[in-house]
Amino acid sequence: MNGAFVSGAFLHRADLHGSVSDPTLDTMNFLNEITLRYPQAISFAPGRPYDGFFDTGQIFEHIQRYLNHLSDNGNSPESVRDAMFQYGPTAGRIRELIADSLRRDENIDVPPDSIVVTVGCQEAMLLAVRALIAGRDDVLLVASPCYVGITGAARLLDVELIAVEEQESGLSTADLEAALESQRALGRRPRAFYVVPDHSNPSGTTMPLATRHQLLDLADRHDILLLEDSPYRLVSGAPRLPTLKSLDRRHRVVHLGSFSKTLFPGARVGYAVADQPVHDAHGRTGLLADELAKIKSMVTVNTSPLSQAAVAGMLLAAEGQVAELNKEASAYYRGTMRSTLHRLEQRFPPGVREATRVRWNSPEGGFFLTVRVPFRADNEALARSAQDFGVIWTPMSYFHPHGGGDHSIRLSTSYLTEHHISEGIDRLGDFIEHEAQRPSGPES
Amino acid sequence: MNGAFVSGAFLHRADLHGSVSDPTLDTMNFLNEITLRYPQAISFAPGRPYDGFFDTGQIFEHIQRYLNHLSDNGNSPESVRDAMFQYGPTAGRIRELIADSLRRDENIDVPPDSIVVTVGCQEAMLLAVRALIAGRDDVLLVASPCYVGITGAARLLDVELIAVEEQESGLSTADLEAALESQRALGRRPRAFYVVPDHSNPSGTTMPLATRHQLLDLADRHDILLLEDSPYRLVSGAPRLPTLKSLDRRHRVVHLGSFSKTLFPGARVGYAVADQPVHDAHGRTGLLADELAKIKSMVTVNTSPLSQAAVAGMLLAAEGQVAELNKEASAYYRGTMRSTLHRLEQRFPPGVREATRVRWNSPEGGFFLTVRVPFRADNEALARSAQDFGVIWTPMSYFHPHGGGDHSIRLSTSYLTEHHISEGIDRLGDFIEHEAQRPSGPES
Repeated sequence: MNGAFVSGAFLHRADLHGSVSDPTLDTMNFLNEITLRYPQAISFAPGRPYDGFFDTGQIFEHIQRYLNHLSDNGNSPESVRDAMFQYGPTAGRIRELIADSLRRDENIDVPPDSIVVTVGCQEAMLLAVRALIAGRDDVLLVASPCYVGITGAARLLDVELIAVEEQESGLSTADLEAALESQRALGRRPRAFYVVPDHSNPSGTTMPLATRHQLLDLADRHDILLLEDSPYRLVSGAPRLPTLKSLDRRHRVVHLGSFSKTLFPGARVGYAVADQPVHDAHGRTGLLADELAKIKSMVTVNTSPLSQAAVAGMLLAAEGQVAELNKEASAYYRGTMRSTLHRLEQRFPPGVREATRVRWNSPEGGFFLTVRVPFRADNEALARSAQDFGVIWTPMSYFHPHGGGDHSIRLSTSYLTEHHISEGIDRLGDFIEHEAQRPSGPES
Repeated sequence: MNGAFVSGAFLHRADLHGSVSDPTLDTMNFLNEITLRYPQAISFAPGRPYDGFFDTGQIFEHIQRYLNHLSDNGNSPESVRDAMFQYGPTAGRIRELIADSLRRDENIDVPPDSIVVTVGCQEAMLLAVRALIAGRDDVLLVASPCYVGITGAARLLDVELIAVEEQESGLSTADLEAALESQRALGRRPRAFYVVPDHSNPSGTTMPLATRHQLLDLADRHDILLLEDSPYRLVSGAPRLPTLKSLDRRHRVVHLGSFSKTLFPGARVGYAVADQPVHDAHGRTGLLADELAKIKSMVTVNTSPLSQAAVAGMLLAAEGQVAELNKEASAYYRGTMRSTLHRLEQRFPPGVREATRVRWNSPEGGFFLTVRVPFRADNEALARSAQDFGVIWTPMSYFHPHGGGDHSIRLSTSYLTEHHISEGIDRLGDFIEHEAQRPSGPES
C-alpha cells in the first residue's frame, strides 16, 4: 500500500490497563448493524427521547427570549452580540439560571460558581473522572451493569473501573463497602463511586431513600465522592425521592446534570455541580468546579453559547421549573412503561412465567426495564430474534464492564407507540418461548 | 473541616509523565488576573476574533436556511424536526457541506465519510492525539513555541510532547528530522507532528511552499502523520499557499479545521479530516475518521445539531466559499496587522531598533506577531508593563512546552482599533525602552 495506513485498535492502550476489557463499542456496533439489517423489526433498543412534543420553530423563540433577558438585565446590544458570537467563559454563561432551576426543581441549593456547563452530561463525566482519578492507584467504582457513558469516559482516560455487581433489587451498600475495603487491601485508593439513583440505565432500578442515606454515610466514612447522574428524574412522572445532592451535607456528591431528556438532546448541554473545596499547592482554596473548568478548557474550550442560549430560553420560559415543563412528556413515558409492563403480564401470565422462568422488574418511571430470560442473551440470540421474530432488544451483558448479565435483556420503552409495544412484546414472547425450547448450550 | 475536601493539582498525574511540566494554565491565569486588575491598559493579549461584522439576528436566518435545505432535499417535517431535536450521528450531520466547502476553498478533495464534526478544533485535537498516541512509547512532536490547545490535549491524556524549537524563520525540517531520529534512538515511536503552517499562533510564522513539500516527504520517510491546524488561513487576506492536506498524496495529513475564526466562535464547530485507511483486528478496513468518531462518543457524544445547523446555514449562504464570505473580515485583520507593523516601524526607527535590540517578524496575515525584546519578558515584566505603562502582551514563554522564549512577546492584533494600536505600541515602546535601561539581571 502506498502511503500511510494505520493499524487499528487505537482505543486499547494495552500496556496501561489491560484489565479494562470493555468491548462496548464493538457490541454497540453489532446492535446498529442488526438494526440496519432488519428495518422492519420492532426495536426496544434505542433510549431515544420522544420528540413528538418538540416544535422546531420554538427554538428561535427560546434563543430570542434569552437575548431579551440579557438586554433587560442591562446588557448593551454589543454585549448581547458578544454573548452569542464569542467563545465565552469556560464554565458557562447560564450558571445562575441552572442554579435557580436546581433550587426550584430539586431542592439543590448551590452557588452558581459551583456549576460548570458542559457539552452534554458525557463531558461532565469525563471532566469529573479526569479530575478525581489522578494517581496510578486511584480507582473509580461503578455499579454493574452501568451506563456506557461512564465506561467510555474511563476508557478514554485509561482509568480502571471496579464494578460492584447490583442485586436484583439494586445496589447494596454492603457490597460497595466490601469492594472499597478489598481495593484498599490491594493498596488502591478508591476515589469515587458513579451511580444513577433514579430509573437507572440500563436496569431501571431506583435506589430507596434509606439506601441513599447509607450511601452518603458510606462515602463520608470511606472518604470517597459520589458521582450522581440522574437524567430521567424530571421526565419520570413517578414520585421523586430526593437526589443524593439534596441530601448531601458534607460535600460528598458531585451532581452530573443533563438537559437532553428534559429540554432537548440536540442542544448538547449538561452540567456538573462540584461545590467541593479544593486546596491548591499554594494553599489557596477554590472549588472542584474550577478544576473541572480548567480541564474543560483542554476538551471543548467552552459550551456553545448558542446552545446555552436555547436552553436558557427554555429555562426562562418555564421559570426554572423543568419538572413542570415536562408534565406532558412524563405522562407519555409513564404510559409507555405501563403499557409495556401490562403487555408483559398478559403475554406471560403466571403459569407461562413459571414455565419459561421469565421475570422482569417494574420501574415506576424512566426509559428502561430489565427482563431476565432463560437462555444466553448474546449477539447470536439477538440476531435470531431480529431475523426470525422481528424484535430487537439490548443484551444486558453490554453494560457489564467485567462480564455478567448473560441472561438478561434491556428493554427501552421511551420511543415506541402503543401499537408497537403491544406487537413487539408479543414477538418477544414468541422468541423467548422458542429460545427456551431450544436444545440448551452448556451455559444456559 | 467537616466533610469532603479535595487536595488540588488534579491536573498532574505526577507518576505518569513527570516531564510534562507545562504550567500553561497557571500562567494564563496570571494574564487574566493582570487584565482584570488593569482594565484601562491596552491589551495585545487576547486572540479574539473581531465581532463587528456579526449580526445576531442572522443566526436565525442561517438556521432556518439549513432547515429549508433539509426540506428541499426531501426530508419530511418530522425528519427535519428530528435533525434538530435528537442527538444525531456522532460524526456529524453536515459533513457533505464541509467537504464541499473544502473542495471550493482549499482544493482539498475528500469524501464526506473522512470528516468528523467536532466541538471546535480543540475536540478534534483531543480525538487525534487519543487515537494516534496509543502506546507507552508513542510520542507526539510539536514546534516550540506552539498553540496551547495541543499542549492541553496532550496533558489531559498524559501524552508526552517532544518540542522542536522553531528558528526565527520558522520550523526547520532538518531540526524535526533530528528530533525524530533522536527519539527513535531512545526507543520511542514518533507518531505525529502537530503544525500550524499559516500565520501560526503564537509566533505568526508561515511555512514556505518548499518546506511544506519537505515536511510531507519527511512524514512519509519517517512514517508519521502530520496534524495540520490552520484556523487563520481564510481570514488572512494574504495570498494563500496550499494546505498540507491539499498537497498530500499519501494520506500523511490529518487536517484539523475550525469555523471559530471564519463563521463564529460561539457555534463551537470544528472538524477533523482523517482519510487514512485503518485496519482493525478483524482485518476490516475503515477510515481513521471512524476511529475518531468512536472516541468522540466518549467525549461529547455528538456536536450540537443546533450549532451545526447555524454553521451549515452560513456555508449554504456562501455557497461553500468561506474565503469569499470573509473578505471584509480579512481586510480588517490585514489592516490591523499592517497598522501594528507600521506603528512599530515608526516607534522604533532603525537607530532606536539597534540601540534597544528590538526586532519583530512581519506576518502578512493572521492575528499574531512576535517581538523580540532585550529583557526577560516574564510575569514580573508583564506586571510592570500593565501597571506603569498601561499595556498588556503575552510572554512567549507561555507557549514553550519545555522552556524557551524568555526574550520574546506575542502581540495579538485581531481585536484592537487603529487608535488603540497606535497608542498601545507607543506605550509598549516606552516600556521596552525603560526595561532596556534597567540594571539587567543575570539572565538578560
